[in-house]
Amino acid sequence: MVSAPRIALCQMRVHPGEPRRNAEAVLAVIEAHRGRADLIAFPEMCVPGYLLGDTWERAAFLNDCGQWNQRIAAATAGGPAVVFGTVAVDRGARGEDGRPRKYNAWIFAADGRALEHPGTGRPYGIKTLLPNYREFEDTRHFYDARRLALETGRDWRDYIEPIPWEFAGARHRVGVMLCEDAWEDDYVQKPVEALAAKNPDFTFNLSASPFTRGKNDKRNRVFGAKARLLGSPLLYVNAVGIQNNGKTLYTFDGQSTVYGADGAVLQEMAAYEEGVSILEPGLGLGGWRSGAGSQAARTSAEFALTPNSQPKAPNISRIAPFSIPEAHRAIRYGAEKFLESTGLRKVVIGVSGGVDSAVSAALFAEFVKPEDLLLVNMPSRFNSATTRGLAKALAANLGCLYAELPIEDSLKVTMGQIGDWEVSSVNGSLRVPLRLEGVAFENTQARDRGGRLLAALAASFGGVFTCNINKAESTPGFGTLYGDIAGFLSPLGDLWKHEVYALGRHLNDVVHGREVIPNDVFEIVPSPELSADHAVDEGKGDPMYYPYHDRLFYSWVQRWDRATPEENLAWYLDGTLAKELQLPHEVDLKKLFPRPKDFIADLERWWSLYMGAGVVKRVQAPPVLAVSSRAFGYDHREYLGKPVYTERYQELKKKALADELLKKA
Amino acid sequence: MVSAPRIALCQMRVHPGEPRRNAEAVLAVIEAHRGRADLIAFPEMCVPGYLLGDTWERAAFLNDCGQWNQRIAAATAGGPAVVFGTVAVDRGARGEDGRPRKYNAWIFAADGRALEHPGTGRPYGIKTLLPNYREFEDTRHFYDARRLALETGRDWRDYIEPIPWEFAGARHRVGVMLCEDAWEDDYVQKPVEALAAKNPDFTFNLSASPFTRGKNDKRNRVFGAKARLLGSPLLYVNAVGIQNNGKTLYTFDGQSTVYGADGAVLQEMAAYEEGVSILEPGLGLGGWRSGAGSQAARTSAEFALTPNSQPKAPNISRIAPFSIPEAHRAIRYGAEKFLESTGLRKVVIGVSGGVDSAVSAALFAEFVKPEDLLLVNMPSRFNSATTRGLAKALAANLGCLYAELPIEDSLKVTMGQIGDWEVSSVNGSLRVPLRLEGVAFENTQARDRGGRLLAALAASFGGVFTCNINKAESTPGFGTLYGDIAGFLSPLGDLWKHEVYALGRHLNDVVHGREVIPNDVFEIVPSPELSADHAVDEGKGDPMYYPYHDRLFYSWVQRWDRATPEENLAWYLDGTLAKELQLPHEVDLKKLFPRPKDFIADLERWWSLYMGAGVVKRVQAPPVLAVSSRAFGYDHREYLGKPVYTERYQELKKKALADELLKKA
Repeated sequence: MVSAPRIALCQMRVHPGEPRRNAEAVLAVIEAHRGRADLIAFPEMCVPGYLLGDTWERAAFLNDCGQWNQRIAAATAGGPAVVFGTVAVDRGARGEDGRPRKYNAWIFAADGRALEHPGTGRPYGIKTLLPNYREFEDTRHFYDARRLALETGRDWRDYIEPIPWEFAGARHRVGVMLCEDAWEDDYVQKPVEALAAKNPDFTFNLSASPFTRGKNDKRNRVFGAKARLLGSPLLYVNAVGIQNNGKTLYTFDGQSTVYGADGAVLQEMAAYEEGVSILEPGLGLGGWRSGAGSQAARTSAEFALTPNSQPKAPNISRIAPFSIPEAHRAIRYGAEKFLESTGLRKVVIGVSGGVDSAVSAALFAEFVKPEDLLLVNMPSRFNSATTRGLAKALAANLGCLYAELPIEDSLKVTMGQIGDWEVSSVNGSLRVPLRLEGVAFENTQARDRGGRLLAALAASFGGVFTCNINKAESTPGFGTLYGDIAGFLSPLGDLWKHEVYALGRHLNDVVHGREVIPNDVFEIVPSPELSADHAVDEGKGDPMYYPYHDRLFYSWVQRWDRATPEENLAWYLDGTLAKELQLPHEVDLKKLFPRPKDFIADLERWWSLYMGAGVVKRVQAPPVLAVSSRAFGYDHREYLGKPVYTERYQELKKKALADELLKKA
Repeated sequence: MVSAPRIALCQMRVHPGEPRRNAEAVLAVIEAHRGRADLIAFPEMCVPGYLLGDTWERAAFLNDCGQWNQRIAAATAGGPAVVFGTVAVDRGARGEDGRPRKYNAWIFAADGRALEHPGTGRPYGIKTLLPNYREFEDTRHFYDARRLALETGRDWRDYIEPIPWEFAGARHRVGVMLCEDAWEDDYVQKPVEALAAKNPDFTFNLSASPFTRGKNDKRNRVFGAKARLLGSPLLYVNAVGIQNNGKTLYTFDGQSTVYGADGAVLQEMAAYEEGVSILEPGLGLGGWRSGAGSQAARTSAEFALTPNSQPKAPNISRIAPFSIPEAHRAIRYGAEKFLESTGLRKVVIGVSGGVDSAVSAALFAEFVKPEDLLLVNMPSRFNSATTRGLAKALAANLGCLYAELPIEDSLKVTMGQIGDWEVSSVNGSLRVPLRLEGVAFENTQARDRGGRLLAALAASFGGVFTCNINKAESTPGFGTLYGDIAGFLSPLGDLWKHEVYALGRHLNDVVHGREVIPNDVFEIVPSPELSADHAVDEGKGDPMYYPYHDRLFYSWVQRWDRATPEENLAWYLDGTLAKELQLPHEVDLKKLFPRPKDFIADLERWWSLYMGAGVVKRVQAPPVLAVSSRAFGYDHREYLGKPVYTERYQELKKKALADELLKKA
């Protein structure tokens, strides 16, 4: 057996659009591992970053990345070899947008230069499968092995080759693929199969893979199977950090993992932690292909291993199992890093005494100092002593700054100006009376808090303010633009209402280990308190009944086979609604909707809002911190249009209402 | 010669996401043309609509479209044949997102049924080239002929075949392609070449092609060449209407055109007008292949022909020729139709006396009745008598409703609450003094106008309010979120400042034919009037010098080969800046930037804002009405990140500053 190379996985934090910062981190890792490792693997797109919008169209940016690629390759002279993901430009050819052709590529460099890839004939290998769904849009910017095959008349498999690497007198055949290449199951072309046919000694999957709840389990299942297919170890190297596409913020969770030839998880790096893991030579590269490596790996002391998780198959068409600690970890990481990225450290949170703002406050209190955290309660005449007391108790529990700023004086000015008046043309020939009342007056209160006070407070405090909306409110647009739909980030914007409650209890019970959120916050009825119709102490509040509407909205927004009123009504009529929506037992559908027409009226009310006002508001809403498999924003593309109902829905509705009449008669 | 079929082009208005409405329009056209036409062509995606976000993931929507497709095909029994663009679903196969496979497809139906396509073997043909740049993302949702070829091992050209259509005892070979298929020049695969090799008698290009300034000229050039390549007539059928992807609103301009076999424009339908054009049989289908049809077409009386335009090649890397009437037509159409789509007819516009709001008002006054249009001036102590007078004069000229609502009382309430105070923790252990002043106080004024007054006024008036920001302000984020960056639409959001002026003059001179915008509005210095530093009467105003910054920002945002400070600085140093930016003669660079360091300071100031605060604000900004080749929003994808400067930029800067020191010494 030849001397086995010491392999290291670098789970690095990638800063989007900052090639210098990223490349310098790579260079520092190479430098620090001279004599300690023989081959270091870095994530996909670790030089440029990944979610960069149309930055890929800037020639200066591409050139900049190119020269950093070269400097990294050069740094392997006399040191460890590296394999890293980056952008490669083929200036001699054009992409389908007419611009210089770019690849989502990887470079294997040793002895000071990038090795020629036997498949492409270039100093880089390229990604075969380009994801183009959810938040991904690789095909918008990059060319791939399949298009290249169509162009050259070669087989696309020709571009997939293990790279031959001479080390210590032996020639290793190292397989390398990028992220989606391993997620081949929905594609006709199967890169892992193609690679397996060429017998790599071991294979890297370099990824830039954002966190999604339940993804880790699914990946272990998929990648374990791919390792078995390869018949040799599979080393998954993922980035950490945050990246975004403006509307939606993603956390990259790392969790770089080594899979044995038998598919077992040999080693997993901690979520969200930067670090380098040097695999023990004792693991035996030579032995890996025979499957002898499936004993648990020993690792260097540089990073912590998390317990191996058991793969299990999530049922993607149902509500994914809600792991509170997992979601909390992602939200905390994302919120903290995003705050850091603004260059500010101070946060203002409008606290109503309700659960959403309380959870937001308890979350930020984890990493914002008490003197940098300002909670503000802004009561009008409609806010109860109950909620005002809860807001104050929350602030007292957190020990942070607190202010109560009533909005009645300001509302009086507004009402005095435009509450009840007449507007006319300059020459007086036109006269129109106007009154500010009803919902318009309710929204005026919300904007007075958000657009007037919170924004000004944040500016004078030198910080940001949060948007505390949740996904159940965001779906129908239950909130006020420039009011409570405002702020630097929606940390809870990808959580349903029941998940906000669960996160709140987790924050108290586990994270803070004490009652920072007063227990009564979880008990009172959720209410906007914008009119006498929302009196909390009388049990009046939001028009949504969350145990039901959370799941109804989920079926439209997040369910994999996306439902519409057509499916909902069909389920209702055939008695499978509770099962399809996975309603909790407390929901009594008969009581909630005594007659089909009640069900239908509710369904159409909320669908029309989801397709109507909801979209209008989401277009101008703050960025959402994504944790689910379908977050609002870039991951849930939509348009401003009319709410529509299919022909089949109309038929079902007609039949249901006719049956109801028949029953009555 | 056989009896030639009477062919009609239906330039229909397509309503996105409304299959019933669209299909019923198609059915009505078929019905109305029984006995008057033999073959009617409709646009691409005329049943479902085109810009629909992820609506394509809804099975109920796809089924709904499917049954409308069938009803349209059935309606051809005993009537004219049709060819129309729509979505086709292959339920037996999967797309790369794992969902049922969908095609951007076309159906040719005659005698009550969809004809089998000889290439696909299915009752539909499919698009070969899927655009995936700017606002387009066909590949996200649709499978195409090229992927199919890779999967089946067939040649992609096999899926391109003229469809054989029996009419009046003769067999016609009708070529059909969809939109991008004709824009083949940047692609390796050339569908028109492939089709030409199969000798169609004539060819339709069914399109859903949004308006972009200068597109019509470019299309005439490209399509003329394609007709020559085909050696037979090319009939371009485009939709009219508006569609959007939330952040960006597009107008579809129609301008359906018939190109002769020699590439000449034989006929062009009017922009933005719905209509059916029946081509005169005298044009001679049989004769078309021989090129005899290149005489100007006579058309039915149902629609107006616009004068044929001369093809010319726009220089895409330069500022496109600004056609005011063309831009005005698109903006007016888009703003009017978008207002209609909200279901409201009333509009509130905050008028400062400056040019942007004045142009916005003069624009909406074209189609909003005086009693439905409310202009509001909201002065603080910083607003001059000059601008207040201009605002009032504008309203008087338009004869619409007008109000002056000062914001000083409201500012006093805010300053009384948080202007100069101390905030503390509940137990008093922490105390922090806060002052609302400087820029924070300036923005408070803007939010008082937008978030407090305009939003409340629009709600009580029962209408919407506009966002009057232009592209030169939007680029660096020169505006206040929840303040002047708020509203239902940015009608001027895709115009540079000098284009806003030009549009304003056009509105006065041509559209209204009188001075509705007071001439002084064009003369005063542009200013936000938020502090004593912005005193208009003293000539103080915006920090941008628009004659220069308009073009600098253009080079970053809109120039095809997108510039960055690296290119800008290189141009400055080699003396080509004025030429590259196409600066107007009035810009004296030497005077503007006496020393390199002045140029660099200005460059970095604005680039940092464009990459920083500008993005933050655009994420939450209202939808932009697109008219350029790169509008903010979905057409200009970006991310929240750090402004960065390339290595080469840093070198150039170092050198420039060193040279400057040298000169001094």
